[in-house]
Amino acid sequence: MVGPQLLRNRKVSRSVTFVAGLPRCGSGDSSGGNRQPSQQKKKAISSSSLLDLEAQKRHCLYTTANSAEEEIFRVRKLEIADKNKGFIELLQQLTVCDSVSDERFQERFQELAKYGDDHLVCVIEDDKSGKIVATGSVFIEKKFIRNCGKVGHIEDVVVDSSVRGKQLGKKIVEFLADHARLTGCYKVILDCSTDNIPFYERCGFKQKEVQMVKYFI
Amino acid sequence: MVGPQLLRNRKVSRSVTFVAGLPRCGSGDSSGGNRQPSQQKKKAISSSSLLDLEAQKRHCLYTTANSAEEEIFRVRKLEIADKNKGFIELLQQLTVCDSVSDERFQERFQELAKYGDDHLVCVIEDDKSGKIVATGSVFIEKKFIRNCGKVGHIEDVVVDSSVRGKQLGKKIVEFLADHARLTGCYKVILDCSTDNIPFYERCGFKQKEVQMVKYFI
Repeated sequence: MVGPQLLRNRKVSRSVTFVAGLPRCGSGDSSGGNRQPSQQKKKAISSSSLLDLEAQKRHCLYTTANSAEEEIFRVRKLEIADKNKGFIELLQQLTVCDSVSDERFQERFQELAKYGDDHLVCVIEDDKSGKIVATGSVFIEKKFIRNCGKVGHIEDVVVDSSVRGKQLGKKIVEFLADHARLTGCYKVILDCSTDNIPFYERCGFKQKEVQMVKYFI
Repeated sequence: MVGPQLLRNRKVSRSVTFVAGLPRCGSGDSSGGNRQPSQQKKKAISSSSLLDLEAQKRHCLYTTANSAEEEIFRVRKLEIADKNKGFIELLQQLTVCDSVSDERFQERFQELAKYGDDHLVCVIEDDKSGKIVATGSVFIEKKFIRNCGKVGHIEDVVVDSSVRGKQLGKKIVEFLADHARLTGCYKVILDCSTDNIPFYERCGFKQKEVQMVKYFI
């Protein structure tokens, strides 16, 4: 499930600038806001090996510039410590997500870590509050079709209700799609409600097939 | 992508019987056709550990009984030798699937094998012709939502045009869905064309969301 109701009716009131590149990265670095987003993003991706990509992910910043305020949002891979930064509570805004014990969380975290680049959960942390305010995941499916091609599956995208209008959802999706592309996928897919189709169209997606589901519980 | 045009307009002219259980299994055993499918299936699943499940998969038979002819279709996990039994050619009936070298096939096969029960490709082999006539795959996604739940994703279901009407597509889907259920998934999902919705409804699925796609090549 991708794209909860939190993505609906998003009011884009401020510009979002993508800032990447190790030399300028750091939790307190907001000076990159004046850079040209397209140039930086292109540069970051064109020179990427997978290891570079991982390094970039850990250090990428999104800055939201506004005349009245400036906020910095760190985009990075999920870390075990994020459980205490509201990660589970954020997921509860998406769907049913009961409390998870530290042990169970760490167990699942380690299970996913074994997949390496084939499974990525990314988060955006609000440096002001120290809270996780956006997340999404992508896993890489390896096929035999399309010359043993790969497909990225985006799942569980959610943005905290307190930070709507900053295009964080779009940046999460773009980040996950970039990961799929850089790991060699020929396409990336997701399932969403009809209400969220316009949002994903703005992210460069097109409607294709129909999702079918069978529940066991 | 699931459910190619080969699944459309399927004419069910013969009954298909599920036969499971190690004592009765073997490539030449078609005597199980008189059993009650629901009872056998229930029995097989209720006693399953994952290892038992794997054993059952390797030995399960589907027999298609008809007054004029009797055919035996072996349902099992994909094996490396299946490349020479028309597996790639079968996938070519589904979508773009160029020829794959033996080396590339084995490499992908081994990559998938590392996932263990988290990725299953099953096939049906026609014992008469020795050809792979149906296939499908399912991979298990591990989440944090739903109490660190799991979701099965069914992909790349295709039935050879020469064996339509034997409900092999339905059996492939049921087999994959059972695998998802037995590995602890709370649901199994797939994407299909609108033409194939009735087929998947007959398999117990319901329409839910919309698939969105972004191509990189």
